[in-house]
Formats: sequence, C-alpha cells, structure tokens
Amino acid sequence: DGSALVENSGVAHVQFFGADAPYDASIPITKALDKFGDVLVAYQMNGKPIPRDHGGPVRIVVPGHVSARSVKWLERIAVSKNESGSSWQSGYAYKGTPPNIKSFDGVDLSKYKSVQELPVQSLICTPKAGSSIDAEEDEIEVKGWAWAGGGRNIYRVDLSIDGGKTWCQADLKEGSDQPYNRAWAWTLWEAAVCIPPELRKAGTELELIVRAVDSSYNHQPEHPDLVWNLRGILNNSWHRVKLFVKAEDA
Amino acid sequence: DGSALVENSGVAHVQFFGADAPYDASIPITKALDKFGDVLVAYQMNGKPIPRDHGGPVRIVVPGHVSARSVKWLERIAVSKNESGSSWQSGYAYKGTPPNIKSFDGVDLSKYKSVQELPVQSLICTPKAGSSIDAEEDEIEVKGWAWAGGGRNIYRVDLSIDGGKTWCQADLKEGSDQPYNRAWAWTLWEAAVCIPPELRKAGTELELIVRAVDSSYNHQPEHPDLVWNLRGILNNSWHRVKLFVKAEDA
Repeated sequence: DGSALVENSGVAHVQFFGADAPYDASIPITKALDKFGDVLVAYQMNGKPIPRDHGGPVRIVVPGHVSARSVKWLERIAVSKNESGSSWQSGYAYKGTPPNIKSFDGVDLSKYKSVQELPVQSLICTPKAGSSIDAEEDEIEVKGWAWAGGGRNIYRVDLSIDGGKTWCQADLKEGSDQPYNRAWAWTLWEAAVCIPPELRKAGTELELIVRAVDSSYNHQPEHPDLVWNLRGILNNSWHRVKLFVKAEDA
Repeated sequence: DGSALVENSGVAHVQFFGADAPYDASIPITKALDKFGDVLVAYQMNGKPIPRDHGGPVRIVVPGHVSARSVKWLERIAVSKNESGSSWQSGYAYKGTPPNIKSFDGVDLSKYKSVQELPVQSLICTPKAGSSIDAEEDEIEVKGWAWAGGGRNIYRVDLSIDGGKTWCQADLKEGSDQPYNRAWAWTLWEAAVCIPPELRKAGTELELIVRAVDSSYNHQPEHPDLVWNLRGILNNSWHRVKLFVKAEDA
C-alpha cells in the first residue's frame, strides 16, 4: 500500500513535470498515497477529454492544495527525497515569508516552506461593493462562499455590520455536506443581515464583514497587516464590503 | 483497505466506550482508517503496560485530535453512521459555539460541530510572566513550544516586544523535523529577542508576544475576544507575557 516506500526509502515527495517546461511542482508523498486524499491523474473532465486550456490531455489534480501543484499538460511523474527545485516551489513564488523580510536580497529561501495547503477564507459575492440600500430596509440578503485548504470543512460563517462588535451566522448551503476533511469544493452560504435602525440613516456608509471558521476551528485574521508578506500571498483576512444607505432624495 | 466500507455503507464514525461508563467519544472513520493518521489501540507506553492513571490496560490514542477522543480504559469499539451521543461529543462540552450565543437555554446543539482537530497555538515558557530583566540587557533568551491540530507542522514562530508592530523569528528545535502533516508532538523553539534601547528604561513594563504559523499558513488570532465562545474553549490567541525592567536601585 505504499507505506513501506515512505517509511523505509526516504522518498518524501512526488514531482510532476509539465510540457510547458520548465514548469514542475511536487506534493508530499503522503498526500499522493492517501486513499482519502483524492489526488487524480485526470484525462477527462465532465466525461470528455480535458480541453487544452485546462491542461489536457493529462493533468494532475491535487484537491486541498494551492492550484500551482495541479500541474497541467503532464509529461512525467517522479518520486524523490526532495521537493521540486522549480521557482514555484523552492523559489520565492509560493513562499510565505515572515513580515520582517522586506526584500529578497540575500535571503536564504530554503529557510522558508513552500505553500501547499491554504488557510481558511471567505468572500461576499452579493451585494456588490459600493451598492446602495434603502433606509427602509431592515435587513439585506447576503450571499457568498467559504473554503479551507487541506479539505477542512467550513463549520461556520459569521457576518457583522458593526465592525465586528456583533455577529450573526449564515446558513450553509451547497458544499456544506462534503465528507469530513474531504471538503475540496467551496461551501456556499446565505444570510439575512439585520441593519439596526441607528445605521439606517440616509447617506450612511456601512461595512459588511464576513469571516469563516474551518473544521480545525481556525479563524481568518482581522486585518491584512497581520499576515503581511513580501509576495502579497496568503491574505485570508476578513472580507469587507462597503455599502451606502441611499440619500433621502435619491 | 476499508475504503468500500466508507464509500458504500454510510458508516462515518468509530465510537470508543470507556469502562468509566458512560464515557464515550468518536472520531471520523477516515481518520481511523488513514494509514498516515497513526491512531493507536495502545496497550503499552514506553514498552511497559500503560499505568491505570493513563488509561491502561487499553487506551485509544488519536493524535492531532482533542484528547477527549483518546478514550481511557477502553472496553468496546463500534462503527456507526452517527457520532457519539455523549455529552462530550454531541452535548455542549466540546462545542465551539458562535459569539452571539450567550446562554445554552433553548439552543439546538446539533447545529454546531463537535471539536476534533484544534487550531494552531503557541506558548512562552521562559521567561516566566512577571520576571524582571536588567536595563543593561539588550536581548533576552526566550523558549517555548508550538503545536497545531490535525498533525499540521509548525512552519514559523514569531516574537514581538512592541505589541506586534515588529516581529522576529524563533529557531525551531526538537519536533521541527516531524513528517509532513504528521506532526503530532510539540515543536520546541528558542529565540534571542532584542530589547530596543527606548524600552530599556528602569521600571518599564514590557509585553512579550508569541504567535505561530502552521503548515496551512493558519495564524493565531490577536485577541481572545475574536474567538470568544460560551464554554471558553478553543482560545488560541497570541500568548502574552509581562516583564519588568528592574528599577535602578533594585
């Protein structure tokens, strides 16, 4: 079943090489061999050959990992002791460096780990940023999605209209019934967010906030500066959408 | 290999029953069957029978999950479609409820998920809270541990002495070489934290802060109020230790 390979050989990674050489990437071999990890060597999409733009004729699909590991136009697979040496893996492209690194000059990138799984995140799709609402509306309909890396399920989606002082919970819809820690797809959600009377004054600017909680009870950070890094990646801070209460004469 | 059981039967949980009835708990069957999940039916500890206080003669060990699932004094194992109905699983004991739930009166607990994996956390062990440092010391030696649920590795430990405006990184020590996403044990760390001259004034109160980042790039929340819940569990906010610069005549 592959366990002996992992335990005894020192093999730790599976490397994927694309026809758009030198594009290559790797994943930990435990992910590749995990029977509940659902890694695919895919040659069809929805029952048909994979279109070229989507990486056909053969593409790797690594659910729960950053999509840079789902190598398109696959030519070759190799097992190895080391991860891929490509710039998208060992280089700076997908390294989440600490906040005190303000330049890559002289930085030893081997000190930092490449991104595989992503942290929990969520997004408001409706209403659009900058939308206006009527002062008579005491609640607004809000929709969006949430997702976490590593297959972790979305356990909760919280919404706030008062800067995070109070929160209400969205109803979790499609995607909320994915198997435990095999939630590879988005979880869609909907909520009716109450607008308190004191915020329903004509011309008022409102900020609608969403944050999600995953099956390890990880939360999203409040502000982007808490997760700042030189590449600007891995920003999973609270999503904030500005709304306006219509002026009375509008 | 058990996959068919999971896919075709509807079986989703493995339940463990302890001799201290009615103590029982369950885990998702995919964790129990995962060959890299390292769940044990343990009858020895360090080559000897498990002491009664540690759950012997037979104890379940579920690494990466909250220890309430590592049932002591095991009498029986069962597979089932539903998780354990015990108060430590389906009851309020290990439910991370949302912040707007201020009382359990009338609350439908089946709406909320039981805790299995815990979020990333870290702790400063040295220096102890309330310690004093000399005004001449320009750096202090700091030690502690970090850990994340689900076997996720500790990728980084950040320290701050200025309230989180700037950060430096600890050196990761024992535990930092655990296999990918099988990091069941603590990662120990050490750091020499520089104290800037403007903070080295006699009588000044300093606050040393630690936060860790796991292999999914999840961060710890800045303040406990961001993860507040009625049971007071799952608080993985930044650990803060107060220190004092000795008065000149001390």
